[in-house]
Amino acid sequence: MSQHLRSLNWTGSELVILDQTRLPNEVTTITCTSHEQVASAIHNLIVRGAPAIGVAAGYAMVLAIRNLLAQGLTGDNLKAAYEAASHTVESARPTAVNLSWAVGQMRKVFENTPEEKLLSEMEKRAAAIETEDRTICSLIGENGSRLFEGKDNLQILTHCNTGALATSGIGTALGVILTLHSHNQVGCVYADETRPVLQGARLTAVELQRAGVPSKLICDNMAALVMRTQPIDAVIVGADRIATNGDTANKIGTYGLAVLAKYHNVPFYIAAPFSTFDFSIPTGNEIVIEERNPDEVRQVGGVYTAPEDMDVFNPAFDVTPHELISGIITEKGVIFHPDEISIKAYERSLQL
Amino acid sequence: MSQHLRSLNWTGSELVILDQTRLPNEVTTITCTSHEQVASAIHNLIVRGAPAIGVAAGYAMVLAIRNLLAQGLTGDNLKAAYEAASHTVESARPTAVNLSWAVGQMRKVFENTPEEKLLSEMEKRAAAIETEDRTICSLIGENGSRLFEGKDNLQILTHCNTGALATSGIGTALGVILTLHSHNQVGCVYADETRPVLQGARLTAVELQRAGVPSKLICDNMAALVMRTQPIDAVIVGADRIATNGDTANKIGTYGLAVLAKYHNVPFYIAAPFSTFDFSIPTGNEIVIEERNPDEVRQVGGVYTAPEDMDVFNPAFDVTPHELISGIITEKGVIFHPDEISIKAYERSLQL
Repeated sequence: MSQHLRSLNWTGSELVILDQTRLPNEVTTITCTSHEQVASAIHNLIVRGAPAIGVAAGYAMVLAIRNLLAQGLTGDNLKAAYEAASHTVESARPTAVNLSWAVGQMRKVFENTPEEKLLSEMEKRAAAIETEDRTICSLIGENGSRLFEGKDNLQILTHCNTGALATSGIGTALGVILTLHSHNQVGCVYADETRPVLQGARLTAVELQRAGVPSKLICDNMAALVMRTQPIDAVIVGADRIATNGDTANKIGTYGLAVLAKYHNVPFYIAAPFSTFDFSIPTGNEIVIEERNPDEVRQVGGVYTAPEDMDVFNPAFDVTPHELISGIITEKGVIFHPDEISIKAYERSLQL
Repeated sequence: MSQHLRSLNWTGSELVILDQTRLPNEVTTITCTSHEQVASAIHNLIVRGAPAIGVAAGYAMVLAIRNLLAQGLTGDNLKAAYEAASHTVESARPTAVNLSWAVGQMRKVFENTPEEKLLSEMEKRAAAIETEDRTICSLIGENGSRLFEGKDNLQILTHCNTGALATSGIGTALGVILTLHSHNQVGCVYADETRPVLQGARLTAVELQRAGVPSKLICDNMAALVMRTQPIDAVIVGADRIATNGDTANKIGTYGLAVLAKYHNVPFYIAAPFSTFDFSIPTGNEIVIEERNPDEVRQVGGVYTAPEDMDVFNPAFDVTPHELISGIITEKGVIFHPDEISIKAYERSLQL
C-alpha cells in the first residue's frame, strides 16, 4: 500500500475509485467512465463517506454530460437525459445529504451554462467541490482541536470511518483527531469496528496506524465499558445529514454512543461540513434511513456467520436527537448545544 | 443438524462436547478422556455458557479421578494430584462462577468419600449437577414468564447465547423466552449478534429458528435504535457471576444494553441460577474480567478484517451495576431492584 490512501482520483477523463470494500487486505481500484458506474460504486460502498460520495457525484455528472454530448444530444433531449442521469446518481444512497447537494450544485452549472461550455464548466465545478472539501476538512480539524486547548493525553472514542478515505482531505471527525495528534495531544483513540461493514476495523484502524496515532480497536459493544473505565474526553463522529433542529443521521450505532456518552458525562461531538445541514427538513423524523442487504449482518467477509435464512434488521444509519449532542463542529465554527434556535442564530450570524 | 443440539453428552466413560466454535456451518464433536482436554475445550470456547461449563467441569473431575486412580495413586499423592487437576479446570476461564462452584461441589465429594467409592460417587454428583441444571432452567423459565402474565406480542431483546447450548436445559434468558413462546406470547425477539465471538449470530439465531420463535438478528450497535423505535417490553440476558450487591458480570456488551434500557425505560432482567451469586465478593469491582486474544477482534472467521498488528482492547465480559437491573430471575424466584439489602433479605427468606 502507498503511504497515503486516496479514495478518488479524477484523471481528466475517468474517475478512478479505490475499492474500499477490499481494504485492508487488498488495494485495488475501479475505473469509471460513466455516471452509472459511479452510482453503482456508491451503492456498493466501493466509495463511501458522506463528503467523498458528494465529490464522486460531482465527477459522475461530468462523465454523464460528456457521454450525452458525445451522443449528439442537445436542447430538451439533453436536458431530459441529464435529469435522468442526475436521478440515477442521487438515488444511489438515500441518507447522506452530500449526494443530492453535489448533484444540485452540478445542476446549477448545467442550467446556467451554454452547451458549448458545459463540459469544461462542469468539470471545473466538480474539481471545486473536491478542493473545497479538502479545505473544509482542514478547517473542521482546526475548529475541533480548539475544543481541547491546553489538554493532553486525550482519550477519544470514534465510530465508523471519517478520515481521508471518507473525504478529499484529512477527514471530519478523524480530521479533528489527526489535528490534535499533530499537536501531540492524543493519548489514545478508541475506534469502534463498526459492524456490519466494519469501516472502523478495515479503514479507520489503517488510517490511525499510518498516521502513528496511539489507538485501540474495539468491538462496538465495548464502548460502554471503555466509557466507564477510561477517562474518555470526548466522542467525536461524523454525520450524513443534519436536520434544521440539529438531529443528526450518521452510521448505525451513533445514537447508542450518544446515549452512553450522556450517561457517562462524556461530551459528544459531531464533525461535518456545514453543507451537511438539510434546512428543508425540520427534524430527524424526516430523514430516510437506508436499510441494506440482510446478508451484511448474516455474513462477514462473504462467509455466513448466522443461518442463511435468518430474519435480520439492517438499518445503515440512525438519528441522534439534538439534545444528546454537545456541539456540531463545522468549517465555520462550533455550534454548541444545537437546537432549532441556536442553529438558526448561528446561520444568521454567518450571513451578516 | 439434528433437531435438538446438546452441548454435552456423558457416555459413562467419555465427555463428548459439541464444538460450538464450528456452528452454525458445521456440527462436529470432540471426545474428551481427560480433565486437561475438557479444560482446553472450555478455554477455547468449544463449550461455553456459564451453566454448561459448570456441568463440563463436573465431568472433567470425574475423568480426573478415574485417570488418577488408574495410575494407582492413593492417599496424599492422590489428594495432591486431584488438587492440581482441580486447579487446571478452575483456571480454564476466570469470570464465570459456575466453573469454581462445580469444582467446589466435586471437591466436597472427593473429601468425604472413601477411595473405593470415589469414582461412582463423583460420577453421581456430576450427573446430579447436570440434572439440577435442567430443572433450574425450567424453573427460571417459569419464574421469568410470570413477569409478563396477560401480555402478548412481546418484543424482547437479548444478548449472547443463553439457551440449550449454554446449559443442560432450555436455557436461562433464552429459557424465559422459550417458555413465553410456548404460551404464544412472543411477538419478536431481537438477538444481538454479540461480537467478537458472535454467539448471538452463530448460536442464538439457530436456537430461535429451530424453536420457531419470531426473531430478528441485529448487530450489537443497532440495539439502541431498536429500543427507540420498537415497543421493547424487556431486555433479558444471562449472567456469569453476581456479586453480593447484585452487580452482574456477563458477556461484553451487557452493561451498555443496561444503560440503553434505563434511558428508554425498558425493564432489564438478568436470568441465572441462584448459584451464580458469589457471596464471597461484596461488589462487582472484585470480579476478574477475562481479556482474550486480540485476534478475536482483528479477525472474523479466521480472516483478518483489521490490520494484523492493530492494538486491541478485548474484554470478554463487563459488569453491570445493580442499580441498572430491574430484577434477577432465578429458579427460586425473582429478586426485584437487587441490592445488598434486598438480596440478603431474599437469601434469608429462602432459609426459613
